[in-house]
Amino acid sequence: MNHLWLEDLIKRALEEDIGHGDITTESLISDEHQSCGEFIAKTDGILAGIEVCRAVFSYLDKNIVFEGLKQDGDFIAKGDVIARVRGKTRTLLTGERLALNFLQRLSGIATKTYRMAEIIRYYKAVLVDTRKTTPGLRFLEKYAVTVGGGCNHRFGLYDGVMIKDNHIKAAGGIQKAVTEVRRKVPHTVKIEVEVENLEQLEEALAAQADIIMLDNMSLDMMRQAVEMAKGKALLEASGGITEDNILEVAKTGVDFISCGAITHSAASLDISFNLML
Amino acid sequence: MNHLWLEDLIKRALEEDIGHGDITTESLISDEHQSCGEFIAKTDGILAGIEVCRAVFSYLDKNIVFEGLKQDGDFIAKGDVIARVRGKTRTLLTGERLALNFLQRLSGIATKTYRMAEIIRYYKAVLVDTRKTTPGLRFLEKYAVTVGGGCNHRFGLYDGVMIKDNHIKAAGGIQKAVTEVRRKVPHTVKIEVEVENLEQLEEALAAQADIIMLDNMSLDMMRQAVEMAKGKALLEASGGITEDNILEVAKTGVDFISCGAITHSAASLDISFNLML
Amino acid sequence: MNHLWLEDLIKRALEEDIGHGDITTESLISDEHQSCGEFIAKTDGILAGIEVCRAVFSYLDKNIVFEGLKQDGDFIAKGDVIARVRGKTRTLLTGERLALNFLQRLSGIATKTYRMAEIIRYYKAVLVDTRKTTPGLRFLEKYAVTVGGGCNHRFGLYDGVMIKDNHIKAAGGIQKAVTEVRRKVPHTVKIEVEVENLEQLEEALAAQADIIMLDNMSLDMMRQAVEMAKGKALLEASGGITEDNILEVAKTGVDFISCGAITHSAASLDISFNLML
Amino acid sequence: MNHLWLEDLIKRALEEDIGHGDITTESLISDEHQSCGEFIAKTDGILAGIEVCRAVFSYLDKNIVFEGLKQDGDFIAKGDVIARVRGKTRTLLTGERLALNFLQRLSGIATKTYRMAEIIRYYKAVLVDTRKTTPGLRFLEKYAVTVGGGCNHRFGLYDGVMIKDNHIKAAGGIQKAVTEVRRKVPHTVKIEVEVENLEQLEEALAAQADIIMLDNMSLDMMRQAVEMAKGKALLEASGGITEDNILEVAKTGVDFISCGAITHSAASLDISFNLML
Amino acid sequence: MNHLWLEDLIKRALEEDIGHGDITTESLISDEHQSCGEFIAKTDGILAGIEVCRAVFSYLDKNIVFEGLKQDGDFIAKGDVIARVRGKTRTLLTGERLALNFLQRLSGIATKTYRMAEIIRYYKAVLVDTRKTTPGLRFLEKYAVTVGGGCNHRFGLYDGVMIKDNHIKAAGGIQKAVTEVRRKVPHTVKIEVEVENLEQLEEALAAQADIIMLDNMSLDMMRQAVEMAKGKALLEASGGITEDNILEVAKTGVDFISCGAITHSAASLDISFNLML
Amino acid sequence: MNHLWLEDLIKRALEEDIGHGDITTESLISDEHQSCGEFIAKTDGILAGIEVCRAVFSYLDKNIVFEGLKQDGDFIAKGDVIARVRGKTRTLLTGERLALNFLQRLSGIATKTYRMAEIIRYYKAVLVDTRKTTPGLRFLEKYAVTVGGGCNHRFGLYDGVMIKDNHIKAAGGIQKAVTEVRRKVPHTVKIEVEVENLEQLEEALAAQADIIMLDNMSLDMMRQAVEMAKGKALLEASGGITEDNILEVAKTGVDFISCGAITHSAASLDISFNLML
Repeated sequence: MNHLWLEDLIKRALEEDIGHGDITTESLISDEHQSCGEFIAKTDGILAGIEVCRAVFSYLDKNIVFEGLKQDGDFIAKGDVIARVRGKTRTLLTGERLALNFLQRLSGIATKTYRMAEIIRYYKAVLVDTRKTTPGLRFLEKYAVTVGGGCNHRFGLYDGVMIKDNHIKAAGGIQKAVTEVRRKVPHTVKIEVEVENLEQLEEALAAQADIIMLDNMSLDMMRQAVEMAKGKALLEASGGITEDNILEVAKTGVDFISCGAITHSAASLDISFNLML
Repeated sequence: MNHLWLEDLIKRALEEDIGHGDITTESLISDEHQSCGEFIAKTDGILAGIEVCRAVFSYLDKNIVFEGLKQDGDFIAKGDVIARVRGKTRTLLTGERLALNFLQRLSGIATKTYRMAEIIRYYKAVLVDTRKTTPGLRFLEKYAVTVGGGCNHRFGLYDGVMIKDNHIKAAGGIQKAVTEVRRKVPHTVKIEVEVENLEQLEEALAAQADIIMLDNMSLDMMRQAVEMAKGKALLEASGGITEDNILEVAKTGVDFISCGAITHSAASLDISFNLML
Repeated sequence: MNHLWLEDLIKRALEEDIGHGDITTESLISDEHQSCGEFIAKTDGILAGIEVCRAVFSYLDKNIVFEGLKQDGDFIAKGDVIARVRGKTRTLLTGERLALNFLQRLSGIATKTYRMAEIIRYYKAVLVDTRKTTPGLRFLEKYAVTVGGGCNHRFGLYDGVMIKDNHIKAAGGIQKAVTEVRRKVPHTVKIEVEVENLEQLEEALAAQADIIMLDNMSLDMMRQAVEMAKGKALLEASGGITEDNILEVAKTGVDFISCGAITHSAASLDISFNLML
Repeated sequence: MNHLWLEDLIKRALEEDIGHGDITTESLISDEHQSCGEFIAKTDGILAGIEVCRAVFSYLDKNIVFEGLKQDGDFIAKGDVIARVRGKTRTLLTGERLALNFLQRLSGIATKTYRMAEIIRYYKAVLVDTRKTTPGLRFLEKYAVTVGGGCNHRFGLYDGVMIKDNHIKAAGGIQKAVTEVRRKVPHTVKIEVEVENLEQLEEALAAQADIIMLDNMSLDMMRQAVEMAKGKALLEASGGITEDNILEVAKTGVDFISCGAITHSAASLDISFNLML
Repeated sequence: MNHLWLEDLIKRALEEDIGHGDITTESLISDEHQSCGEFIAKTDGILAGIEVCRAVFSYLDKNIVFEGLKQDGDFIAKGDVIARVRGKTRTLLTGERLALNFLQRLSGIATKTYRMAEIIRYYKAVLVDTRKTTPGLRFLEKYAVTVGGGCNHRFGLYDGVMIKDNHIKAAGGIQKAVTEVRRKVPHTVKIEVEVENLEQLEEALAAQADIIMLDNMSLDMMRQAVEMAKGKALLEASGGITEDNILEVAKTGVDFISCGAITHSAASLDISFNLML
Repeated sequence: MNHLWLEDLIKRALEEDIGHGDITTESLISDEHQSCGEFIAKTDGILAGIEVCRAVFSYLDKNIVFEGLKQDGDFIAKGDVIARVRGKTRTLLTGERLALNFLQRLSGIATKTYRMAEIIRYYKAVLVDTRKTTPGLRFLEKYAVTVGGGCNHRFGLYDGVMIKDNHIKAAGGIQKAVTEVRRKVPHTVKIEVEVENLEQLEEALAAQADIIMLDNMSLDMMRQAVEMAKGKALLEASGGITEDNILEVAKTGVDFISCGAITHSAASLDISFNLML
């Protein structure tokens, strides 16, 4: 994870919340007052974001002491103390909400990812994420996916090739598209082609695509695809993946299963902050 | 909504996704190629973010023609065409994902807000949001809440006073806290006090707090609180509000019901983008 | 005060002054050379900005030792040593001018505010500032007002409602404007209405405005206004307030007196920096 | 003037004032509503900043029509219409305050400069500014000085050499300091030395300084200095210059008179904005 | 190429050059004065950066008319007119130097790349660049490489895996390193291993590395490597590649030849700008 | 050198290279792993940029220990150890490339400058640079010139006046141009005029230009120019200066010789980084 990006994000997020000042706290708490607070799990799940949480307080005040009692990837149970923070009361009160907003969201993603990855743990298929992330938070959300046991797909439009329907039409066929792209992009990135049926799969295999995404295929079609692609290309199942159907998809023998819901629709994990004044 | 903030956010989000370039599209689609695409609802809900969507494309390319067929706040049904975009194919392909990421998230929030606000529509109580928003996206998420029929609570630590437990302890009682804050903050913001029982409510009323938040109170206690506060202060119910219990809370007669889940745990609304090459 | 904003402002201001380098100092003073300097009052007044002054040097060089001998709000007399700074001579010479520019301006505002606030100290009326501040320095200038004994009005267009003449015309009357605004803005901010005569005041009171600004009213009219508004709304006198007329205005019984001159037309307080090489 | 700097400054200043939104105006004025407003002089003076004023509105909205009736440098009399603006009412109301804050401050500086420059108009001496400007606004304030008939001194530490007392001590004498600096700085900038008495002046002349600043010298001493420096170096009088003493200083025959008060202590010029709804 | 990055770079570069203003031009040329200028080749080469050049002027002033007579990739001969620019004389004079600085550097890189790529044009080997680029200009310099007929290697540390000596030691061998990396990085990027001898090559092949970099190998060793790797991995020759030895390297049969000198040591191509006043 | 600018540049350059992360290193090297590395000269030259190199690592990680064994301006011979770095292996691997890119480029410029300055060391003429620098890196490249023994010309359009052909035409002659500029620019900057023949030189001398640039003049003409200008103005030779002709130019007696090639066409100095794991 790029820490320069994290600092920038924390700065913007703090400015969003603090604006010209935390008028309540500045009016009531003296600048010297010290205290201690705890982050406590209010429900079970997988923790993600403890270092982001630490970074929020450290960005506000270098002298805050932050003690992580749990680590990212740990299972946390209701009532567990996740971390302790000690320092200026003003800093604790001003940073608390942002720290929680990060921690709850990232832990929510890790938890949802974990649940889905667990379902397919005895199969070859690897659960991967998508670009369906919150604008501005992709690097954190993709990190939370790895904490939960998933893997990352490409980060953006720049570090992987994904040839979709429209690219194919514009290029005049899969073969031409793959050839053209291979000539132009760095030889260090793989070429993935999205196909909707077995004829397209055939073409993509002939064009020597590195990865082929099976878009919204039936389980039956996926099974056939696995037969056809064996040893020639990696296969990625995509479209409408849920906790209910992921096991069946994994059983088809695909290499990857990509799922947008682990990032765009994970509910926050409930965590609270108790300040002991 | 501050349009300067929106431009900054769109710029950062585009850079996150595009990085050094959309290597697939730049390799396969010529810079002159033009086409047209449509945003289509794949499920029912309340639309929010259509102008954000327009701004994404317009930020990338001033010559994109964006035609909104639905407006924010409209009910959209599965299959509805929400908007049409026409212009350089490269721009459409590069901007599509970000536009969708905004549209789906904001419509998800508006839809969840709408469902909860509808439940209490025949009661005085107004549904309001919290500071439990996505870091960096608060202004958009709070906007989506208003689209869905909710109202906004304070935007951050700077535009409203919220005296909590710890502030009260530090100040030496509710009366002292309110007096001290009133002396220091602009006379243009109201003073809200968070109370957990009726004794505290009594004190807050005596201190002439403008708004009193009833934190995790039972329905019974809330009803008593309403009796006590009549005409003296506005009451806000808070804590654990769900679609299942909001009606009962509204029936107690409180003035506001605040709910974090409408922003932190709303699932994305399913919307797709079809490019017609 | 938001310290993130202060850091940003100091950075920009240093870049404005230093550009590609302090060519005189870099040519003549070695990087190792150390010395000590003092900020000295050259006239009497109220000090404001000592922490801003410290932050300028600390931003340039973490190892500078800054010792404040006076605090914000202290009365300083000609000849008083305000602060001592010790460290790299280069840093002292490079930061001196910016530190002074802040210190002189903020102390100038605090001093002017103090003079006006003192005049009305035995009356209920509170002296408040306006949005007539230097672009980019509002948070510092409003801070200096509080140092001088004034209070802050809203910080910007976002944290308080001020319904003026034109808003009233557009809304179709004071009652309609207040009702409409109340429905839309966060319930945490108060609603202020600007009125020019007693008929408008009557309407504003009927509409239950929280605060009513009496714009350029005669003393007589203000007295009547105070009678009418008793217990119903807070009154703020505004327009043409000077050291000469503020006492008479306070005597009318208004709650607040707002004055732009304390920020836009306060002369700098004369302070110098003596380096002891 | 660097227009890129102006855009950045306007952006920051607008964000300072607007924050998350102009909540009054957005609640009461529809986005389509159009109107027209006028900037009107409420006192006599010299206008400066009309293009900055235009830029504020144009930054907010490209479609605003701004018609300047007066130009920078024009004498404006009470009641004069300075400019007319036409467009979205929301934009006019949101931009009005910032436009005025710039216009009043810059015109205040131009007016004060004009008054002082007029006093010495029949003498050789040129009135120049200093680095005693508002942090972040130096380029605008120095522009306003030229509008008022003054000239600019160096803009910052980077575009002119000013050898002061402490530099001289560190270098071991004026001669050594001048020689060392000449060897190191670009040959395109002149070398100015600050002297406090005639012995130092002698040394500075011997060292072939391009400009010599006479720091807080008596009129008598200045006259002698002028005699001594004739044809060898430019002389700049500095320290405690006011409208009361500037004429006598000019009569001594110095080339430049520098004055901090024209930027740091100029009162705002009173200008108002009338919106015609 | 990401146009948002280009705008940011141009803004920074203009600010570097213009600072508080082009004092010569602003003093002598009126804002209304219009003229026309031409970019003319003063030596032969390959043109690169014409759109960057256009963007510089368009960033300064939307009304500048820029007519490109040559395109990126065109061979330009001494005396050729490359482009014509028409508009405000001030803009032409202020933007000229930056436009040239970009154009000359990028054309220099394209020209050097072209010369080297031409030498190996009848061989399989593809000339690729490295990360040895100018800090902040990588995206432009890599673009210039493609204009000259080379291809891009990975853009940064984020879009390709390069396992070097030290990574191998830390991981405990090539096999372990490749396995570990494959488990962690997106499946969309290829894995490249740097080897120094044939034993390491053997290991890298066994570990199924996608690409193997032959670091500073003799021609003989490269030939053997090509034999060994046939059909199993792509081979990239690296280290000390010059116009003198590239042909021999290509003859060994490697797939890629990477060369830092095309970016870090290409001399500027001589181009001038003639303004016709 | 402005350290604020250096930090900004390093931040941007690191983000350019690291993007969302150093995926190889993060996958293979644990965050705790420590090691040590050395920068080693691979060819002879003049070192420049050692502090920039230190700043790169320190920006990434405050705990890195950087020990410079050579200083800027030192002659370094093949095999010399320039600096040692100790700390987290991740930081060393991630920062290595950027540190080298700076060090090699700046040392290349210093080395080329040194070679040319040495040629003319026994003559009055001083070698100066131009504005033909890499966009965004001017302050570093100009610094490298001084390290190599050259001097700086003006840094940008803002800190020196250069009246060229077109300015002269627009102003209606050299005399008018000089007079007009002198009236408008700060009296702290000198006025340079570019002339192409001796008639123009005559005019420029008559106009009392401070510096006169002899543009592409023959040696003969330059000698005559030196005669004519003696004691009246500084002369700067410019145009087509190379290692082959600089001595002859110096012999003419000009005061300055400006050369673009020392910045725009200096080859990188070969330096490597060896990590000892």
